Amino acid sequence: MRPLEFTGGILSLIDQTKLPLKKKIVKCRTYEETAKAIKDMIVRGAPAIGVTAAYGIAIGAAAIKTISNEEFFKKLELICQTLRNTRPTAVNLFWAIDRVYQKAFRNKELSVKDIKQIITDEAYLIEKEDIETNKKIGIAGNEIIQANWTILTHCNAGALATTEYGTALSVIRFAHWAGKNIQVFADETRPYLQGARLTAWELQQDHIPVTLICDNMAGCFMKQGLIHCVIVGADRIALNGDTANKIGTYSVAVLAKENNIPFYVAAPFSTIDLKTETGEQIPIEERKPEEVTHIQGIRIAPEGIKVRNPAFDVTPACYITGIITERGILYPPYQESLFHAEAQRMQRL
Amino acid sequence: MRPLEFTGGILSLIDQTKLPLKKKIVKCRTYEETAKAIKDMIVRGAPAIGVTAAYGIAIGAAAIKTISNEEFFKKLELICQTLRNTRPTAVNLFWAIDRVYQKAFRNKELSVKDIKQIITDEAYLIEKEDIETNKKIGIAGNEIIQANWTILTHCNAGALATTEYGTALSVIRFAHWAGKNIQVFADETRPYLQGARLTAWELQQDHIPVTLICDNMAGCFMKQGLIHCVIVGADRIALNGDTANKIGTYSVAVLAKENNIPFYVAAPFSTIDLKTETGEQIPIEERKPEEVTHIQGIRIAPEGIKVRNPAFDVTPACYITGIITERGILYPPYQESLFHAEAQRMQRL
Repeated sequence: MRPLEFTGGILSLIDQTKLPLKKKIVKCRTYEETAKAIKDMIVRGAPAIGVTAAYGIAIGAAAIKTISNEEFFKKLELICQTLRNTRPTAVNLFWAIDRVYQKAFRNKELSVKDIKQIITDEAYLIEKEDIETNKKIGIAGNEIIQANWTILTHCNAGALATTEYGTALSVIRFAHWAGKNIQVFADETRPYLQGARLTAWELQQDHIPVTLICDNMAGCFMKQGLIHCVIVGADRIALNGDTANKIGTYSVAVLAKENNIPFYVAAPFSTIDLKTETGEQIPIEERKPEEVTHIQGIRIAPEGIKVRNPAFDVTPACYITGIITERGILYPPYQESLFHAEAQRMQRL
Repeated sequence: MRPLEFTGGILSLIDQTKLPLKKKIVKCRTYEETAKAIKDMIVRGAPAIGVTAAYGIAIGAAAIKTISNEEFFKKLELICQTLRNTRPTAVNLFWAIDRVYQKAFRNKELSVKDIKQIITDEAYLIEKEDIETNKKIGIAGNEIIQANWTILTHCNAGALATTEYGTALSVIRFAHWAGKNIQVFADETRPYLQGARLTAWELQQDHIPVTLICDNMAGCFMKQGLIHCVIVGADRIALNGDTANKIGTYSVAVLAKENNIPFYVAAPFSTIDLKTETGEQIPIEERKPEEVTHIQGIRIAPEGIKVRNPAFDVTPACYITGIITERGILYPPYQESLFHAEAQRMQRL
């Protein structure tokens, strides 16, 4: 199950607003179409929107009609800015855009044609690396999962949120493949219902036992002892471990702590924002009220009602048992373990 | 705003499954229709279903064609049993049914015709008392509300859940009428959306400032300091103060405690079940999966997905700051304060 495919200069996306009832493919032929697909949540999930943006740059760059490097980079910057402006919270978006732009910029002396190829290659590489990263997250996370556990997850940190396997769902997949007889409880995740529409569907497709619940039921099942572990994804992790993720994650984390249930975040290193010291500095996207007042186009609330609709919340590090990354599991204090993991990687390079 | 009206031997109910989009009236002409209306949640809310059941007995009793007292009571028991079997959690249902039946039974020597009148009178009295009770709850609760507070409520413990004013919303109404410049955050309350459909609408009708949020957002707003107090209703309160209420109440209570926000339950004494020592003994209704997989008839989850759908959860007394009743506010330890309030009442009788 893969949410995106880049072939012949066109990015094909599974329209995640329509799943699981319809499997519609949206084709992005311009960078503007790609930006719109991110903004409209045709594609969502921090790693997936990073890869999508990278391909968006490749699509945009290919269409720049000039042989002047100066003009090319001027237009390339505009493309990057358009893609940056789509969604504010997930740092993977900015990370992927910066990575592609920097790669192009480091080769700015080459011909425009060659730079275009380098951009496309870098986007491909980001996608390929993401698949590898997710596999490693799944394998690393497997060590904390005990046989016969029921794992709660919130939102969709699955294959659909990445390029394959997922982050939180990669851990769940690898535990399932390891024959640990696990079960999953999936929060439906209002307002966008990523849990009900995407996680439930994804796990069902892979024959992993899954039970769908409303967000407000998670605490009650924790208290009843039915949940053994929580694993969620992340949209941005601050240096101190504070984690921005789908709205409702903070509540799940508090309830897990109150019930002595381990709470893990699964995310690639690209989700860690080295420029953000604490969660308080993470910008939180507020989306349109209609996501709350309407479901699948049907009005559920009175006309003219005031609504708040933050798409994310921040879970302070003190609620997080560990962060499962492609370089192993990080434990508190996170700033220390993050620097340690980064230093180890630098040494190996 | 009143959810039910009994005239000419017919009980008219506002169909709460259709609000706020349609204001449809359902007329119950038999006790079976009344039982079905409770089961299908045409009418809901612990106090309101108590009053409805009382009128259901009156309707059923009126239709019993006999002058034999023995036969009358045999049929009356069947009517009571049918109404008892509608919903298991809210104790007000059983309380009202028992009260009407006992009243009839204490007058079993009278003519069937007179007993029928006594039953109808008792149902009227329960309704009238409920209105008075809710007013007293509103006045009692007003003392804990400070000016400019934002109050979070879950589900609908409003006029629609009672005969008038509501319980939690009665406190909110009286604080509003006292000019305290309060605001309300209403959890949408999945799966049935009582918050989005009923509380938001009820408060909007009364011009009380209300903001609709998804259930999973409440914690995040508490952490941001935007919520000063939580008030919810109750479906059954055990002797030790453990409170069964709409699913999600437990989560809200834990989040309130974690954020040092007072958490109040507002309920009439008829919600206190003197036969239940702790919350563990309260039966929790599990409703059909379609409430979770469909919204307003539209499927939102994949076909064949497994679902859990408990309609209520139990909030342990340790999370409850106080219980606002028509006899004043009870504080922990609840068993003691309950007995104290009950003893005071007995003394006055």
